[in-house]
Amino acid sequence: MRYGRTWLPALVASLGLLLASTATQAGELRGTGDLGVVIEREAGSLVIVEHSNRTTLARVEDLGDFSHASVKFSRDARYAFVFGRDGGLSRIDLLTGTLENRVVQAGNSVGGAISQDGSLVAVSNYEPGGVHVFRADDLGEVARIPAEFGDDGELSRVVGLVDAPGQKFVFSLFEAGEIWVADFSDGDEPDIRRFEDVGKQPYDALITPDGRYYIAGLFGEDGLVLLDLWDLDAGPQRIMDGYGRGEEPLPVFKMPHLEGWAAADGKLFLPAVGRHELLVVDPDGWQEVARIPTHGQPIFAVARPDGRQVWVNFAYPDNDVVQVVDVADLEVAHEIEPGPGVLHMEFTPRGEQVWLSVRDEDRVEVYDPDSMERITSLEAITPSGIFMTWRAHRTGL
Amino acid sequence: MRYGRTWLPALVASLGLLLASTATQAGELRGTGDLGVVIEREAGSLVIVEHSNRTTLARVEDLGDFSHASVKFSRDARYAFVFGRDGGLSRIDLLTGTLENRVVQAGNSVGGAISQDGSLVAVSNYEPGGVHVFRADDLGEVARIPAEFGDDGELSRVVGLVDAPGQKFVFSLFEAGEIWVADFSDGDEPDIRRFEDVGKQPYDALITPDGRYYIAGLFGEDGLVLLDLWDLDAGPQRIMDGYGRGEEPLPVFKMPHLEGWAAADGKLFLPAVGRHELLVVDPDGWQEVARIPTHGQPIFAVARPDGRQVWVNFAYPDNDVVQVVDVADLEVAHEIEPGPGVLHMEFTPRGEQVWLSVRDEDRVEVYDPDSMERITSLEAITPSGIFMTWRAHRTGL
Repeated sequence: MRYGRTWLPALVASLGLLLASTATQAGELRGTGDLGVVIEREAGSLVIVEHSNRTTLARVEDLGDFSHASVKFSRDARYAFVFGRDGGLSRIDLLTGTLENRVVQAGNSVGGAISQDGSLVAVSNYEPGGVHVFRADDLGEVARIPAEFGDDGELSRVVGLVDAPGQKFVFSLFEAGEIWVADFSDGDEPDIRRFEDVGKQPYDALITPDGRYYIAGLFGEDGLVLLDLWDLDAGPQRIMDGYGRGEEPLPVFKMPHLEGWAAADGKLFLPAVGRHELLVVDPDGWQEVARIPTHGQPIFAVARPDGRQVWVNFAYPDNDVVQVVDVADLEVAHEIEPGPGVLHMEFTPRGEQVWLSVRDEDRVEVYDPDSMERITSLEAITPSGIFMTWRAHRTGL
Repeated sequence: MRYGRTWLPALVASLGLLLASTATQAGELRGTGDLGVVIEREAGSLVIVEHSNRTTLARVEDLGDFSHASVKFSRDARYAFVFGRDGGLSRIDLLTGTLENRVVQAGNSVGGAISQDGSLVAVSNYEPGGVHVFRADDLGEVARIPAEFGDDGELSRVVGLVDAPGQKFVFSLFEAGEIWVADFSDGDEPDIRRFEDVGKQPYDALITPDGRYYIAGLFGEDGLVLLDLWDLDAGPQRIMDGYGRGEEPLPVFKMPHLEGWAAADGKLFLPAVGRHELLVVDPDGWQEVARIPTHGQPIFAVARPDGRQVWVNFAYPDNDVVQVVDVADLEVAHEIEPGPGVLHMEFTPRGEQVWLSVRDEDRVEVYDPDSMERITSLEAITPSGIFMTWRAHRTGL
């Protein structure tokens, strides 16, 4: 079942007791290495959680439209930067559980990134198409990069924004079919390098964990485009042509997230678009080496930090099931049914827990990925994305 | 130059002003994702540092013999566990800058590890030979694992202790020539699996970043031994036979640290023993693919987090120089001379800074690894190991 907004006050009230019992922790001295946030999709709020004792610490409300939301963390792992659908950029203090600053910086936004040195926060916008860059400490504006293309100064929607080593941001222009690299290593005026004609309609992108390869998916073509950031002069190259995007397709209920690619055992695991399959890719040559049949259309493929398992969730109507691929055998080894609307999965940094959001039952489930047993369950209002602070220390996350 | 202990009081006094100016920060609310500690070798103390503004926050003294010392962090990145040469295990609160607990748990100790879930701290001992396991929160004893071998109950020195996925500790027995896997997933009574006859005198070991392969160096033979933790039944296998350990050797001034292996661009960079070379190994088949000539006998080979560079320091008398290998070209691209006695190097987690300890000039230098320029310099008393809290979130670190 799904809720309208009318049910919210009652649920917030019922969760109030839970939070009141732990609210005294806000403002106390504590480490921030075991913290995380859970986006509460319909409520436009989030809860701050910790994964040592697996409890909820605080709720932060009135954060706008979270029908799409993502989170980055400050380099000291104290602050969360939350990017909402409505262009809102919020800076949350995880220690005090408060909204410290918020700017509505565009009309329609899909994601953000934080620079290598932690000083800059970038937001990619649909409307107006471009990238806005802010100072991480006070959200003061640093730069606007309008995504102009063609001869008429038209603006393109921007997707697939990531940080990269060398104080760079890399992003793709959907309508323009371009990839841009904005280099802030010389200060607040970026040096921008444009790559045109990379392919039709790049719709999302990822960067490999080492920050070397930027890979964008193409909505308008059956292939991907790759940029080697160690050798920008080589320019973009097409890979995985005919990988399945353009085959006679199943209906696509939801585009998979490319940032959901999992790296494990030297291979990459990629949700096929519209198909009930996970593609296994060898980055040495960028060839497909296997296809793993799955329960539904994969949305996220997330590797356990030790690379032994890849956890996969699915598009509606199969989003009550999660499958676990054994990386050594390249087969589905386990299947669980956490409940309706499993939207996201996040591992603790060393992999002994995996957290799953079960949107339609207002629960976050914590599993032991070795025993496949449920460890505990936390209440949250229509939870979607789960983000933990260990991401502060990884490129592209 | 090297100092005796007589110079210490004067230097501590001269550094007192520096610390006093920042000491008010101790006890204040702050994130712990950008913290680190620097071991002060001769003084038996350490300083707590932060790498956002690159300052020293506090000094903690009276920690015993730090002629060899290593550090692990609690899962919330608030506490440092320091393993001293004299068997001392200290728990330090990074937020308050205080020694919270200390046990002298053996007579001669070389290293430690923290379990996957963060609940257990293990220490490997020479005297008495074995592993002691403590509760991370109060240092209460959990288990003693005497390293008995042969028919007479003789105890072996223990080296190469690491944590591994599945709540395991893995370690090697020098005199016994064995590798043991202690599994604590069922509680405080470990299930121990012994592998005998792995090779003569394993002297140090590492675990790959994904926690899959445990590799021990052999002092008594010219080769390494590998254990695949995904397939323990396959048992240990010899790799890299004839890699140089047993060739007609140069005098070995200091054994390289195996934990100093660097993983970059799908390859491993290994300090050769006694030779002026870095070995490049392809983990697919464990074959040597290149040798890179270096300035001296390498001690640590540390990869920049993006894998684009490997930084190498050297044994005496070449320990005033650091060389930087370009991973794409497999050649030394830069050489710097930070000063006499460069003992250790640590990158910030996303690689925009590298910190170097210059023992004989009581300085820690911070470099920008892109420009190769020095960013700043911090005072510390005979600094050796530098450890940052991002390690809390990685297996084997």
